[in-house]
Amino acid sequence: MIQETDAVVIGAGPVGLFQVFQLGLQGITAHLIDALPHAGGQCVELYGDKPIYDIPGIPVCTGRELADLLLQQIAPFKPHWHLNTLVSSLALQPDGRLLLQTSAGAQLLARSVFIAAGVGAFVPRTLKIEGIERLVGTQVHYQALPPGFEASGHNIVVHGGDETAVARAVELAEQGRAARISLLHRRDVFQAPDALLQQLQQLRDAGHIVVEAAQITGIEASGDRLTALQVVDAEGNTRALPLDILVAVLGISPRLGPIADWGIALERKQLVVDTEAFRTSVPGIYAVGDINTYSGKRKLILCGFHEATLAAFGAAEALKGDKVALQYTTTSPRLHQLLGVASASAPSASA
Amino acid sequence: MIQETDAVVIGAGPVGLFQVFQLGLQGITAHLIDALPHAGGQCVELYGDKPIYDIPGIPVCTGRELADLLLQQIAPFKPHWHLNTLVSSLALQPDGRLLLQTSAGAQLLARSVFIAAGVGAFVPRTLKIEGIERLVGTQVHYQALPPGFEASGHNIVVHGGDETAVARAVELAEQGRAARISLLHRRDVFQAPDALLQQLQQLRDAGHIVVEAAQITGIEASGDRLTALQVVDAEGNTRALPLDILVAVLGISPRLGPIADWGIALERKQLVVDTEAFRTSVPGIYAVGDINTYSGKRKLILCGFHEATLAAFGAAEALKGDKVALQYTTTSPRLHQLLGVASASAPSASA
Repeated sequence: MIQETDAVVIGAGPVGLFQVFQLGLQGITAHLIDALPHAGGQCVELYGDKPIYDIPGIPVCTGRELADLLLQQIAPFKPHWHLNTLVSSLALQPDGRLLLQTSAGAQLLARSVFIAAGVGAFVPRTLKIEGIERLVGTQVHYQALPPGFEASGHNIVVHGGDETAVARAVELAEQGRAARISLLHRRDVFQAPDALLQQLQQLRDAGHIVVEAAQITGIEASGDRLTALQVVDAEGNTRALPLDILVAVLGISPRLGPIADWGIALERKQLVVDTEAFRTSVPGIYAVGDINTYSGKRKLILCGFHEATLAAFGAAEALKGDKVALQYTTTSPRLHQLLGVASASAPSASA
Repeated sequence: MIQETDAVVIGAGPVGLFQVFQLGLQGITAHLIDALPHAGGQCVELYGDKPIYDIPGIPVCTGRELADLLLQQIAPFKPHWHLNTLVSSLALQPDGRLLLQTSAGAQLLARSVFIAAGVGAFVPRTLKIEGIERLVGTQVHYQALPPGFEASGHNIVVHGGDETAVARAVELAEQGRAARISLLHRRDVFQAPDALLQQLQQLRDAGHIVVEAAQITGIEASGDRLTALQVVDAEGNTRALPLDILVAVLGISPRLGPIADWGIALERKQLVVDTEAFRTSVPGIYAVGDINTYSGKRKLILCGFHEATLAAFGAAEALKGDKVALQYTTTSPRLHQLLGVASASAPSASA
């Protein structure tokens, strides 16, 4: 089924969220798509707990706090969320609209598209081992087991050395259902907070988690079924590590992905835009935030907020076919209605 | 004495304050000039207590709250404040620097000037009565009596009908030093909060304030000395209202003032800028916020924040004569030092 819409925003980082807000002020409800299972994008993934000092009017906040504030701000405008979702294709239609296909099978026919994809979609880093690709989703999972996965009786290998990898192994061990849990990393050294490392040590001491210090070189299969990993340790000894399930927690990395194939003019892998409404070379497609480029461009969140604002005005005028006058959130009854706040009575000192 | 400086910011509204912040991140300390006795500009004057909903990451704040947050944010960069001050002239010097004269007698020789003057300088509305101008500063004062003014024994007329006018009369009456205090307004109706109106009524009942419902038509003088106002009441009766001191509290209004005479290219009374660094037609002068114009311009505070940021980069590059690389406040030890915050150790997940 094709869903028709006025606006699709690709990327739910701070700039994509504010894009939804500015479209909301124009009376436009957006579909919002992100590869991650949560809002906030790079801001939450890379500096969720780190301080940001240059958001105007916010002397300091973490990336996660900024995302939370923006989620609160866009709440009145209820976007249609598509999380855990990639845009697999985008094509200009003969009637000037844009048809998007998502990895979740949705088809969106949009009158405007706002690419707020930062450095690209954050997708899990994958294993480069021959034969593993066809096992993804059944015996091989990236970053986490699927929701509702039943671990009972399974021999599970968690592969990775960072906090998320350790946490996955610890969670499984504390569930106590798996038959065996191994934590596979090239060295017996893990990057995680002390408290988590202590939990790991206790579970190792109790025999609930076995740490394997080795690297994967290949897989062994019986028919379609993965039976073991071939691994090599630091001394060069190879052996087979039997398993039913592999959870590879190798981090996530941004990929520009199919955006580069949509026929939009690029300059050093950035989407070229004007500074009037941050339009790309394809009519109806706007690009805001770190993914765009123009003379003077600086990759700062606060600049993306401005870009999203002018893009919303540009799109609103294109949709309406007429000028859109500026209204102020402080004084406009129409904006108060859209924001769901009571309109102040007779503001005597309004500009 | 001429003070040399890298940067002068004209206007201490939200955008001027953020201009100081962005210059600070570039290692540049600014002089900050505003016509008002306090920071915040239009934002505090016109909607100090009214809600703003479209500052990114701040779901709602009042104008005064926004100004306070920005003051907190720029605190590390300690600008040289020039409040209650107008720029009376600005002239390009043969060496490319800009010489500014202020109404307070300061002379600033600046390598860059940032005009963040919004709709212009907020200056007190004045009385249009013949002969009154030469009395300003001695017997006639606008908005307030000068600091340290000794009211003892004086016959003082406060002229105006709004909250500030009523507050001035009440303050004087509570001091209890003036010989007589009149509150002169065209009607015996005042726009002020109920609590203040009750105070006024009590002071009237006790004979400490006399309300005069009339309009000023002229003045009476003995030599250089103002002795009385000529007033006319609603019935058309004229009379003389004797006085020593007149405090005219008629509100403040924005005036573009001398900015229009500085030789900067204008378009409909706005300063024309590029969108790369928000440069005006005069080298070294940047314009940010509501006072500038470019294709796509929307007069929104959040757009001014972006403009101030790119203007700071533009000026920093011009001052340095070289490219300035972007650094992030989250990860840059140099920015942490400038901000006066402890640098996070080894941020492993930095972009």
